[in-house]
Amino acid sequence: MRKIAESTVRRLSLYLRFLEEFEEQGVATVSSEALATRGGTTSAQVRKDLSFFGSFGKRGLGYSVPELASRLRDILGLGKTYRVAVIGAGNIGAALVHFRGFEKHGFHVISLYDNDPKKIGRKHNGLVIRDQLGIEGDIARDPIDIAILVTPASAAQELVDRLVKAGVKAFLNFAPLQLRVPDDVVVKNVSLALELEALSYGLRNR
Amino acid sequence: MRKIAESTVRRLSLYLRFLEEFEEQGVATVSSEALATRGGTTSAQVRKDLSFFGSFGKRGLGYSVPELASRLRDILGLGKTYRVAVIGAGNIGAALVHFRGFEKHGFHVISLYDNDPKKIGRKHNGLVIRDQLGIEGDIARDPIDIAILVTPASAAQELVDRLVKAGVKAFLNFAPLQLRVPDDVVVKNVSLALELEALSYGLRNR
Repeated sequence: MRKIAESTVRRLSLYLRFLEEFEEQGVATVSSEALATRGGTTSAQVRKDLSFFGSFGKRGLGYSVPELASRLRDILGLGKTYRVAVIGAGNIGAALVHFRGFEKHGFHVISLYDNDPKKIGRKHNGLVIRDQLGIEGDIARDPIDIAILVTPASAAQELVDRLVKAGVKAFLNFAPLQLRVPDDVVVKNVSLALELEALSYGLRNR
Repeated sequence: MRKIAESTVRRLSLYLRFLEEFEEQGVATVSSEALATRGGTTSAQVRKDLSFFGSFGKRGLGYSVPELASRLRDILGLGKTYRVAVIGAGNIGAALVHFRGFEKHGFHVISLYDNDPKKIGRKHNGLVIRDQLGIEGDIARDPIDIAILVTPASAAQELVDRLVKAGVKAFLNFAPLQLRVPDDVVVKNVSLALELEALSYGLRNR
């Protein structure tokens, strides 16, 4: 399969969201125009995005909603379930454990870690907050697919180094720094402060 | 000022993070190499990023930490404070009200909204959860600079249309859809589910 741009993957996720809404409403087919409107793009772009992955839909009839949804889930690797650890039990970390969007799409938060002795051992949303120091041992017994890092920037790189060594291949990073990882490890970044600063920059330079 | 790429703005935010750490540690000067290492980039890129905004630093001496930090805050529009409303008092919305990274950088959450009668009127972290229906009236009396949307995708576009009409020029959107806004309005997106799906895609296609 060709290397697909990150922006394409993102649009595929958006198309899937709309298809799932249509599925719930019992809509059977959808046009590339309708997908485009909801994805903030053009129907030509929709057809191009989908063409990377083979042939879909029929000219004039549009796409079958359940077929396209199922194919997109497959492309995005969403058929399987992923075991997720959240590291950092602050406000955001704790909220993520509750986040229904994760569970719905096969991302199961199985553990929550912190390094604060006052938090370790306390229960949060059914999960006992575990000691970060024990994370390699826990993973060896009970592997995880994805680690979500919600730690201070100063702690993040060392943690990632430890987790990569322990075999973790995917990270969702909330800490405001650029993580260094080997080529076969995937990292996505979410930095709320950085997004707000980009807004601030945008407001200042409109 | 030339139009600056979003990726550059993002790196400027990252450089500022590192400079702030250095300020706290009392470090007086920093090399472009050190900034590059922390930003996951090269010293040539650092010099190029900063060159957009005039002349900084001295060859061989590096950058003055307080000067560069102050200049970056200015470039990013961080001298001033921003009034922020969070719309959607679910787990994530509620956690954002507590998020210290916002307050520290001048983003003051002044109000929290929901449309659930069971939530409206309850107090959360010192903020009374207000009725979404009254948002235009509230803004007319007490303007906001930025709205953070943490609502379902199906509710987001209508809310944004109302807020744009009420004069809001900047949005941080957590809902998984591409918002349509006029050209003079700035939107940044954070979608946790989309990031996890990009990880899933990355794991599947490593």
